Amino acid sequence: MTATPIINTRLTFLLLTLGSTIFHVQGFAPQVSTPRLRKCFKSISMSPTDDLDIHVMVNGMPGPMATAAAEACLRKGLKLTPVAMTGPDVEPMTIMVYDPVSEKSSEVKLIPSTQRDEVSASIQALKEACGEKNVLAIDYTHPSAVNSNADFYVEQKLPFVMGTTGGDREKLVDGVNAAKHFAVIAPNMAKQIVAMQAALEDLAKKYPGAFSSYTMACKESHQKTKADTSGTAKAVIDSLKELSDDDFTYDDIQMIRDDQEALDFGVPEDALKGHAFHRYTLTSADGSTQFALEHNVAGRTIYAEGTADAVKFLAERLQEGGEGKVYTMINVLESGALE
Amino acid sequence: MTATPIINTRLTFLLLTLGSTIFHVQGFAPQVSTPRLRKCFKSISMSPTDDLDIHVMVNGMPGPMATAAAEACLRKGLKLTPVAMTGPDVEPMTIMVYDPVSEKSSEVKLIPSTQRDEVSASIQALKEACGEKNVLAIDYTHPSAVNSNADFYVEQKLPFVMGTTGGDREKLVDGVNAAKHFAVIAPNMAKQIVAMQAALEDLAKKYPGAFSSYTMACKESHQKTKADTSGTAKAVIDSLKELSDDDFTYDDIQMIRDDQEALDFGVPEDALKGHAFHRYTLTSADGSTQFALEHNVAGRTIYAEGTADAVKFLAERLQEGGEGKVYTMINVLESGALE
Repeated sequence: MTATPIINTRLTFLLLTLGSTIFHVQGFAPQVSTPRLRKCFKSISMSPTDDLDIHVMVNGMPGPMATAAAEACLRKGLKLTPVAMTGPDVEPMTIMVYDPVSEKSSEVKLIPSTQRDEVSASIQALKEACGEKNVLAIDYTHPSAVNSNADFYVEQKLPFVMGTTGGDREKLVDGVNAAKHFAVIAPNMAKQIVAMQAALEDLAKKYPGAFSSYTMACKESHQKTKADTSGTAKAVIDSLKELSDDDFTYDDIQMIRDDQEALDFGVPEDALKGHAFHRYTLTSADGSTQFALEHNVAGRTIYAEGTADAVKFLAERLQEGGEGKVYTMINVLESGALE
Repeated sequence: MTATPIINTRLTFLLLTLGSTIFHVQGFAPQVSTPRLRKCFKSISMSPTDDLDIHVMVNGMPGPMATAAAEACLRKGLKLTPVAMTGPDVEPMTIMVYDPVSEKSSEVKLIPSTQRDEVSASIQALKEACGEKNVLAIDYTHPSAVNSNADFYVEQKLPFVMGTTGGDREKLVDGVNAAKHFAVIAPNMAKQIVAMQAALEDLAKKYPGAFSSYTMACKESHQKTKADTSGTAKAVIDSLKELSDDDFTYDDIQMIRDDQEALDFGVPEDALKGHAFHRYTLTSADGSTQFALEHNVAGRTIYAEGTADAVKFLAERLQEGGEGKVYTMINVLESGALE
């Protein structure tokens, strides 16, 4: 039996217009009366096929994860703000974000994060033009910027989805909750993987020992540059250990960090530099029964789409009103049940 | 990537001693004072390693499923009653049930189901010797016998695990509940598969649409003699359809009923005549992410062991006292959480 080949067909069209000066913050605020920004006032609709009047400031472009998230926003009917933050060392530039699936595109001027006043002025102008509740941020920047960026979003009253990992997570969550600010903060934005993990946790809680006498195995392949064991694999193992009585440890996880082994494991060649392929098995004592679970991810689409879904979820919470707080991807998943 | 080979190493040792007259019911009742039956009075213990004083009448031997269940009972520390029912057309015989794992064996005289008086006398004698609550039945007979056998167990006040499928199921469950009789009745005794199905049902209920835009696929291989689509596959598909928005139908299930195709799918050669190999996948629209679930069963061990677990569960409920009722494999699974 061979694994179904997984082909990453997403083509990243990222047109960089270095040093463009199309947008100037000083000149930006008056533009709120252009037809483009007037469209903001259309009534909000959460239908996935409609264009939503939610404007997302995707911070961290032209980094690949932020760019993928911006493309996913376009694909899911969200709009991009014409200005976003980039790293302090990145030259100011205007990029064209293009989603090949929906064939939508949007120009975004990237402003170094050091120029906070400029970013701040843009945010306020956008809010005035589009409505206080229709402007949100996504953060895929750098671990070192996590806490200061969160503080900035709170200060700007800008709801945000934090996809960047690292930083002081406790401080991050506590600060946002204390400010009653709206945010989605999650270590893993791939909502389907989060759903699968939650299902396994529930299973282990409800039926501990259901797989007693079954032996466990786990094989995970990631790009060569990933040194440590997958955190997702560890979390899944924790649940499987509740179900089985095998004395499996994290050290028993078979890690693949070699291109040829990855190919043999079913990873497509174009995903060797960025993938997460996992296979877990539970096998009965006599070998006659085997359960297997696989989650095979090539590229960044699953994280990008989960991030865009988190923005849409957060926009709905904003529309409902009330006090803000930190939500997780579990909340995003649960909201599906309410639709 | 190739599937881990699954080797069914269980050797079925079934020694038939046709026409044996070792046991006679008329002469059986007085035997309650033999050392073998006096052992019944030892205090009950549910530790899986201890020998339990639970005596199980496995009806339906020498049929392969009943025999596998009897072996699993021995393996899990249960005892077999020296007399059990067999089909009306089967010659009376005494068989030796042998479990190669625990190396335990037990002789069982098989009495045609037409000789109900003889079976009845044996049950009453066993109850007197071992205690009312220490004698239970397993039924792996014939669909045509399901309802009459259940009536007989109720009449005999003999708690039972009904592994036989078919018959009038509604009448079966209603009759047992009305009589406040203790029974486990389930269409599938493989408790790990039941657990997996329950987990998927829960997942679909909690996070409907979590996999929207993902396409489904299902491939299932069974022995050539199985004409219809797997009921388990249909139930799993029902849950996956709640998670995804794919318009998948039962007709889209790829059925393998061919030996060579089964081998290519990973079925071991010695399991071609009896197996259930299933692989379900959910693939993202761009093909970059795939989730897969497999449950691959060769032979009968998983069903046999689930049946023995159901007997142990039912024995615990009997010890607790109170009114009897119909339990399912979900109840058996849940009881693991209470241990």
